[in-house]
Amino acid sequence: MAASKPAGSALRYFGLNCTLKGSPAESSTERLLHHVGTALEQLGVTGSVARVVDHNVAFGVGSDEGNGDEWPALRRRILEADIFVLGTPIWLGHPASVCQMVMERLDAFLGETDDQGRMVSYDRVAIVGVVGNEDGAHHVGASVFQGLNDVGFTIPAGGMAYWVGEAMQSTDFKDLDPPPAKTMTTVATMTRNAVHLADRLRRDPYPAAP
Amino acid sequence: MAASKPAGSALRYFGLNCTLKGSPAESSTERLLHHVGTALEQLGVTGSVARVVDHNVAFGVGSDEGNGDEWPALRRRILEADIFVLGTPIWLGHPASVCQMVMERLDAFLGETDDQGRMVSYDRVAIVGVVGNEDGAHHVGASVFQGLNDVGFTIPAGGMAYWVGEAMQSTDFKDLDPPPAKTMTTVATMTRNAVHLADRLRRDPYPAAP
Amino acid sequence: MAASKPAGSALRYFGLNCTLKGSPAESSTERLLHHVGTALEQLGVTGSVARVVDHNVAFGVGSDEGNGDEWPALRRRILEADIFVLGTPIWLGHPASVCQMVMERLDAFLGETDDQGRMVSYDRVAIVGVVGNEDGAHHVGASVFQGLNDVGFTIPAGGMAYWVGEAMQSTDFKDLDPPPAKTMTTVATMTRNAVHLADRLRRDPYPAAP
Amino acid sequence: MAASKPAGSALRYFGLNCTLKGSPAESSTERLLHHVGTALEQLGVTGSVARVVDHNVAFGVGSDEGNGDEWPALRRRILEADIFVLGTPIWLGHPASVCQMVMERLDAFLGETDDQGRMVSYDRVAIVGVVGNEDGAHHVGASVFQGLNDVGFTIPAGGMAYWVGEAMQSTDFKDLDPPPAKTMTTVATMTRNAVHLADRLRRDPYPAAP
Repeated sequence: MAASKPAGSALRYFGLNCTLKGSPAESSTERLLHHVGTALEQLGVTGSVARVVDHNVAFGVGSDEGNGDEWPALRRRILEADIFVLGTPIWLGHPASVCQMVMERLDAFLGETDDQGRMVSYDRVAIVGVVGNEDGAHHVGASVFQGLNDVGFTIPAGGMAYWVGEAMQSTDFKDLDPPPAKTMTTVATMTRNAVHLADRLRRDPYPAAP
Repeated sequence: MAASKPAGSALRYFGLNCTLKGSPAESSTERLLHHVGTALEQLGVTGSVARVVDHNVAFGVGSDEGNGDEWPALRRRILEADIFVLGTPIWLGHPASVCQMVMERLDAFLGETDDQGRMVSYDRVAIVGVVGNEDGAHHVGASVFQGLNDVGFTIPAGGMAYWVGEAMQSTDFKDLDPPPAKTMTTVATMTRNAVHLADRLRRDPYPAAP
Repeated sequence: MAASKPAGSALRYFGLNCTLKGSPAESSTERLLHHVGTALEQLGVTGSVARVVDHNVAFGVGSDEGNGDEWPALRRRILEADIFVLGTPIWLGHPASVCQMVMERLDAFLGETDDQGRMVSYDRVAIVGVVGNEDGAHHVGASVFQGLNDVGFTIPAGGMAYWVGEAMQSTDFKDLDPPPAKTMTTVATMTRNAVHLADRLRRDPYPAAP
Repeated sequence: MAASKPAGSALRYFGLNCTLKGSPAESSTERLLHHVGTALEQLGVTGSVARVVDHNVAFGVGSDEGNGDEWPALRRRILEADIFVLGTPIWLGHPASVCQMVMERLDAFLGETDDQGRMVSYDRVAIVGVVGNEDGAHHVGASVFQGLNDVGFTIPAGGMAYWVGEAMQSTDFKDLDPPPAKTMTTVATMTRNAVHLADRLRRDPYPAAP
């Protein structure tokens, strides 16, 4: 049973930061998610971001793996929001293990339907933030788009914002001040499109399964 | 300059079949696209499918590579439609070369804006059909979702329909009669969602670039 | 500093099972790794397999993340072996999060050299075993080959053995009896090639960095 | 039937440049392949590079698609060499369509065995060169490693050399003078390892199929 989104209220977002490092360690992904969150709030959307590894999330593909698994609370916050922001660093050119762990937990949506016979995640828009020292953002975006789309999310035009440095360099996004202009332009476009689409889907949900 | 979609008319689709084989050779991808097209038509959407290799499409990343390049006519049909269906076989676990060639041609959209300062492809929904003897559909979907999303398309929930056989088997989708029930269910869901989303975007286009 | 491989002894292998489930839960990946291990032993190679989630492995990219991190012992067993077998299930078409976690830990090799100035992992051969209910093996193999090759492993011809079922089916590899003939043939070829190549690299290591 | 490699002669390499642009257009991939070729020659390996689109290569998965197909001559040069260098640009984060077209043609090796019952490509080492304005090299490397490994090639440690710029930048590798030091170091390591491994496999071929 999904937590439902209240009709008539403002749109909400929820972001997950899939950095490998627990708080309070600095995180480039956090920095990018901060920019995404700020842009969403300027568009009238309220919400928050959680760092996955600060929570005791179990490996698995169910919605509750028991034994103190803290995924259920994160899952509820995803379903309470209209816009899901998945932020991940790149490691070896791939989504971080923590990001894949999140997608594995979302896999449970494939077997969870609402009272319309639709996956519980329907009518929610997903956008993606990716950072790395170098190379890998497009592949990470591809993997995450496909994973999130499989489990019911809709991807707005220009649904990824990212930054990576030149090949084999070691600069961190968090140390760039001001943040790169092209990335910030992408954040603006992505969030504008996400809000537009989430608002349409809030008003006119996908049809029921026959 | 984009071919524009007329307001008030019925929704339209256009499909590209990225098989490596020219007509009249049988194509499993064609078979899947036939099912997708039929489902769209049952939902009131009109359109057609073209087989890319029946046209003289050049390698390149511009919208017109000259010397008899037949991409411009296919490009126009993509932009005249509300729903773009990209169908591809799997080779070595990857999108067919012809599918990547199509994405390379679509890359030109990154530099082409409409009178709102938005990519010419905006407000169009893309869905994906993938078939292979075995293995590879999710990765193909990932690559195609990301490529099409980068160049401005929106991906509806459940935006891929596919079929693959068991590992290292050689059955062709076109020889399955009746077609696999799970694939047909996915076709129904994908097209229902695509039509819903395309209709919303037709009525309420993405906002202009500031 | 790498654990070194003793000259003149028999070749050794070490396998990691990246299932999400702790022992004693049954694991299809374990079943495939069992076949790989048996084939290696028939070729005179000795070794063992560990299930990653049975150990307290931390998220991170260092060789020892402290606080009871049990990666260092697994890392040592990898370096003591000539052949590294990485086995993973497929989730959402991707390598399991646990597999990506292993690759992130191996990323530390990029900064660890032996007395020849070479990465500590050099002269070791890596092979891959992948299982899933359906679809994804080629992409998983691609991601794992590239990750392991980046951190210094050599990939023999035919370096992956896999099984997946037909699209959207739910059969588990562990329930197939006898195991699929094509997968078993691939296991035989992969292990024969791996042993040949590991033996060559044992006798004639890669040259020192200049 | 494979062209065989003569015993006792010097090692040979053959490179394919998968740029989308025909000669004499400048090509960043050509520039990278030039550095790879030079490094191989300094190690005593002789060979050459061909630009695929200068030849009339057909779409397909056979070794000769007829109608003037010029793949058979390229295929022969691949099999006459000990080291195959596959160079490709990145488009939309993926291997160029021309690179995938090459892999599709190599797919025919899966059904072609030598007099030992082994794929005709066995005992050959493959290395990869990748360039792009930004992002995508690791994914391209992954796709190409897996594709080439499936069809019988062996991947040496550090089997990819690449360059990409910072996110969303437009600098071309061919305009960097001098070439980036890190890329050149990688070229040196990759070629040193490839030559070592190709020499071992020349002397001690993989065992025959039982």
